[in-house]
Amino acid sequence: MPELIQGNAVIGQSGGPTAVINASLVGVIEGLRQGGAGSPGNPITKILGMRHGVSGLVRGEFHDLTNISPDRLDRLAATPSAGLGSTRDKPDAPYCERIFEACEKHNIRYFFYIGGNDSSDTCRIVNELSNERNYELRCFHVPKTVDNDLVGSDHTPGFPSAARFVAKACMADFMDNISLPGIKINVVMGRHAGFLTAASAMARRGARFGFEPAGDGPQLIYVPEVAFDLDRFVQDVAQVYDRQGRCHIAVSEGIQDKEGQSIGAMLIQGQVDDHGNVQLSGSGALGDQLAGVLKARLTPEGGTALRVRADTFGYVQRCFPDQSPVDLREARGSGRFAARLATSGDLDGSIAIVRTSPIGVDQPYAARYERIDLSVVAGKTRHMPAEFLDGHNNVSEMFLDYCRPLVGELPSYERL
Amino acid sequence: MPELIQGNAVIGQSGGPTAVINASLVGVIEGLRQGGAGSPGNPITKILGMRHGVSGLVRGEFHDLTNISPDRLDRLAATPSAGLGSTRDKPDAPYCERIFEACEKHNIRYFFYIGGNDSSDTCRIVNELSNERNYELRCFHVPKTVDNDLVGSDHTPGFPSAARFVAKACMADFMDNISLPGIKINVVMGRHAGFLTAASAMARRGARFGFEPAGDGPQLIYVPEVAFDLDRFVQDVAQVYDRQGRCHIAVSEGIQDKEGQSIGAMLIQGQVDDHGNVQLSGSGALGDQLAGVLKARLTPEGGTALRVRADTFGYVQRCFPDQSPVDLREARGSGRFAARLATSGDLDGSIAIVRTSPIGVDQPYAARYERIDLSVVAGKTRHMPAEFLDGHNNVSEMFLDYCRPLVGELPSYERL
Repeated sequence: MPELIQGNAVIGQSGGPTAVINASLVGVIEGLRQGGAGSPGNPITKILGMRHGVSGLVRGEFHDLTNISPDRLDRLAATPSAGLGSTRDKPDAPYCERIFEACEKHNIRYFFYIGGNDSSDTCRIVNELSNERNYELRCFHVPKTVDNDLVGSDHTPGFPSAARFVAKACMADFMDNISLPGIKINVVMGRHAGFLTAASAMARRGARFGFEPAGDGPQLIYVPEVAFDLDRFVQDVAQVYDRQGRCHIAVSEGIQDKEGQSIGAMLIQGQVDDHGNVQLSGSGALGDQLAGVLKARLTPEGGTALRVRADTFGYVQRCFPDQSPVDLREARGSGRFAARLATSGDLDGSIAIVRTSPIGVDQPYAARYERIDLSVVAGKTRHMPAEFLDGHNNVSEMFLDYCRPLVGELPSYERL
Repeated sequence: MPELIQGNAVIGQSGGPTAVINASLVGVIEGLRQGGAGSPGNPITKILGMRHGVSGLVRGEFHDLTNISPDRLDRLAATPSAGLGSTRDKPDAPYCERIFEACEKHNIRYFFYIGGNDSSDTCRIVNELSNERNYELRCFHVPKTVDNDLVGSDHTPGFPSAARFVAKACMADFMDNISLPGIKINVVMGRHAGFLTAASAMARRGARFGFEPAGDGPQLIYVPEVAFDLDRFVQDVAQVYDRQGRCHIAVSEGIQDKEGQSIGAMLIQGQVDDHGNVQLSGSGALGDQLAGVLKARLTPEGGTALRVRADTFGYVQRCFPDQSPVDLREARGSGRFAARLATSGDLDGSIAIVRTSPIGVDQPYAARYERIDLSVVAGKTRHMPAEFLDGHNNVSEMFLDYCRPLVGELPSYERL
């Protein structure tokens, strides 16, 4: 082992929780222990967990994780949501200054932050501060986000499990839609990137086995990467409905028009409460508004109102306790990898998951972890590449091939 | 085997689909085959499936299920949603007349209808018609509903699997609520009965293992059986929030005030669109409205707006492909039992699941099927008994003991 500075390690979790963010936490702890953390003579004295991310760090609120038993770690790794508590704080320069001061105060020399692109930006700033002040602090960002929008990675821990939930929920809901035909909208998470909404396509039998979808739902998929046009949307739905007598739709919460304006915000602005104030959006609002538009425009004059329903998958999609096996493994593995880098001479960085197998039907899946510079990932947003899209309302075969090994095995259904 | 009239059997599925309604369908088919359906000389000539329930029956639209292979049956039993297609039709007297005529026309002598209390009422009317006309028709209702509101049964196939989803979703969502504290409302299905909303209490660690809940969410549960008072609701939430800094709430979609008026309808009526029309409810509306009320009333004057979120579990809760093992077994078993009764001399009836084990912590679970008269179950609604409730916003230990064996094993979580 190279010469390492003696001190404490700290680990934090940030942003929206996922079903595997604790697996990453456990991975970091295991990686640090592999380096002998807590043993006499070892450079890492204590492993501390920030309570609610950097907000706990600056207040000096920690869980001591140094001696947590391997059995508890195994259970924790399988527990969804952020076990240390998370935070929505996005530190600015003065806040990062306080983070740096807290590190000095608690003799923290190894800093791990599990989160999305904001968290990697926090790492980057804290790392720069420590360099300026000549304080040796090894800063590592460990990736996490159901949105799958981190630059530099094939995919991000948290996404495969959320995609698995979306695929299974859409499978069930599509069967429901066949059983009681109508128009059904499902609103899926993803403020800027459409990967998770796109994963709804895994609900189609064709997607799962690599043959033609044959009309399986969702027949229409709308992601933020493609400008959303309300008139075209209504036409799309009418076309599917006329052909099949039903229509199953997945819509990203982040759809926007060609000027980049949020459709949700625009639709909801028309809505006022009985005091004349603008009614704030609740989480079901976008779906309900789109359903209202379809019902109003597609019900034939004088005819029976069309059966249009909307569900918004909500928080359950990011934490449902049915993790993708690949995701559990990689979340833990990327945490271990970050700890190993930090205790093997590397000073800072983020972890990327790089796919080493070709994307294609029946290709066995393989990937490796790589260190990338914090500046590569910090504060940037990755979008769905053009080759993952097919027209304005569908995903490509390539996206399905990309997604299939990540979500893991899905139930097989029998149709009469 | 007793003397049986030669003819066809027909099976239909009705109302909202569930995760095990196909298991009941498969059970009936297996039960009829056990009687030798389709073999030469056997009284049952063909097994027909109504396409979209009675609406398909009166149009003469059937799936022929006589020779479907056991392998396909096994897969079908594990497939959520109504494989034959369902219907929302609630036949009146003239419609039942058409049903009866269709039975005569297609020489149907064995009639099975899988559904809730409306379906049992359809069975009852068709059965009366066949008696009046001296047409031998054996009419059986096979129970199904996630609402668990059928009279005469300990519980209803479909409920345990939906309860399992609600419990797991609330487990995950409560961990999310600890991780990023705030006020969270989950709206659960159940228009008249609160069983499914009450099952959210299974998310508490105490509920799963039989010890004190220790503040686990949902801390507040509101069911239609208890009159809902908006002011008291706001006070309840404030109390939990003041104590814990967060609050996790389960609300039934069917909550009503002491006059029996739907809270959802009342809250939504205040909302008008930009043309001045009453804005129709979408499925997220009740949760969003309640969240709005809490935010408005609990945010301190001049303070930062409280973090209040609402999710509505929607259709996914009734069909999610993660069935309770007890539910799968009993749904199939009750279908077989109905078929056996019909081919063993009984002329009509519904199937009840009767628990034969005491309700209590660690009591092994056992139940048996019983024939009950159609009139016992037809058109009636069962509500949560008083002993399943604890005050106006909680469920009793007895309810948890009742629910535990039904939902099956739940994930065990590790908390730091």
